Amino acid sequence: MNDISTSKDMHIEEHLGSSAFITDIVIGMSDGLTVPFALAAGLSGAVHSNAVVITAGVAEIVAGSIAMGLGGYLAGKTEQEHYQSELFREYDEVENLPEIEKSEVRVIFEEYGLNESTRNIIADELAKDKDKWVDFMMKYELGLERPDANRARNSAATIGISYIVGGLIPLTAYFFTPTPLEGLMISAILTVICLFIFGYFKSKVTGQPKIKGALKVTLIGIIAAAAAFLIARTFNNLI
Amino acid sequence: MNDISTSKDMHIEEHLGSSAFITDIVIGMSDGLTVPFALAAGLSGAVHSNAVVITAGVAEIVAGSIAMGLGGYLAGKTEQEHYQSELFREYDEVENLPEIEKSEVRVIFEEYGLNESTRNIIADELAKDKDKWVDFMMKYELGLERPDANRARNSAATIGISYIVGGLIPLTAYFFTPTPLEGLMISAILTVICLFIFGYFKSKVTGQPKIKGALKVTLIGIIAAAAAFLIARTFNNLI
Repeated sequence: MNDISTSKDMHIEEHLGSSAFITDIVIGMSDGLTVPFALAAGLSGAVHSNAVVITAGVAEIVAGSIAMGLGGYLAGKTEQEHYQSELFREYDEVENLPEIEKSEVRVIFEEYGLNESTRNIIADELAKDKDKWVDFMMKYELGLERPDANRARNSAATIGISYIVGGLIPLTAYFFTPTPLEGLMISAILTVICLFIFGYFKSKVTGQPKIKGALKVTLIGIIAAAAAFLIARTFNNLI
Repeated sequence: MNDISTSKDMHIEEHLGSSAFITDIVIGMSDGLTVPFALAAGLSGAVHSNAVVITAGVAEIVAGSIAMGLGGYLAGKTEQEHYQSELFREYDEVENLPEIEKSEVRVIFEEYGLNESTRNIIADELAKDKDKWVDFMMKYELGLERPDANRARNSAATIGISYIVGGLIPLTAYFFTPTPLEGLMISAILTVICLFIFGYFKSKVTGQPKIKGALKVTLIGIIAAAAAFLIARTFNNLI
């Protein structure tokens, strides 16, 4: 029994851990590849200096990695605070409205087809230990897992670094070309290849059809860049 | 009993719904306020034309809102696919390894202090209906809720729109000023006020200390803008 429990816990850990980590990399890298690429593309149709494109790209990577990292950190913090406030409320309810909480336990198991006497036994036995009862209600009534304290920090670092790595790729082309439009051509080729590889990798780890997933990611990068190019040029002609 | 169940379900719905919606707005708006502000600030120290700053800002908002929306959409999709693959595996395990699955049910309730005979009754009763058994394992063993099919789409729209709204605020200053550095001054005042208001609102809905939360959000915006300004200017002088 204990072996099953331990191996299952590790299995769940692994699943949750890798899924969250991969989600962070997917978000960070895809935005990092997409936004500086699309920004540089947008500026390439509107300005005549590679230095301006690179400067804007670098400013974007600095700002974006801080904001993305912060986004992950805030989301993690919010999740943690939400858990704490719900925990406080469950303790309050278990203390002051135990009969209502017990009937909530019975309702949970009614949904899974357990018969009435079993539901009563479960509710009565759970009520013997208030800490375990609250733990049960948090997870099984509200569906809330206790958030990992390190999770928000790790998530912030992963997203921020993924963003920088992704963002530098499309900019490199502008260092070795004389004009923004030539830079854009090389940058587009380089970025589209990376979007495809990244999309393929992403699809593989998430168990999706690989080629279809890769094409989807690539297409969205191209759409963002084309939209930025067209709108930036239109804006630049108007002002 | 039914009344309690219904009101509790609505209560949970409301909690989950508003929390996810608020998280999306928090991410979209904070990045929308922060990144175009910081990008414009970075360019203000390096270029001499407001038109370039505005063009870059607009390109960034277009690219950022598409990428952020896409980020939310992909994260939602990934969550949905993860659920499907785990569901498939649980059905397989219930079908082919029922005794192991039953002992996993017993382990779950051992953690909550239920005695052995109760654990056996629960495992045996659950095993009578395979669909409900799998539902139970998904939620209570793996902690996975069936993802809302509309959630990914709504999340993408919320993040994208929040990003555009947030991003246009810092740019407006550059329309009405003659030079980027003057634009930056007005933009910084405007954005800092909005970051503070937004931070206050965010802290209020998430139940944090309001003034402290507002100052935290504002400070991070200022750090991103200052970092972008300094690094963009250094880069511009080097190339």
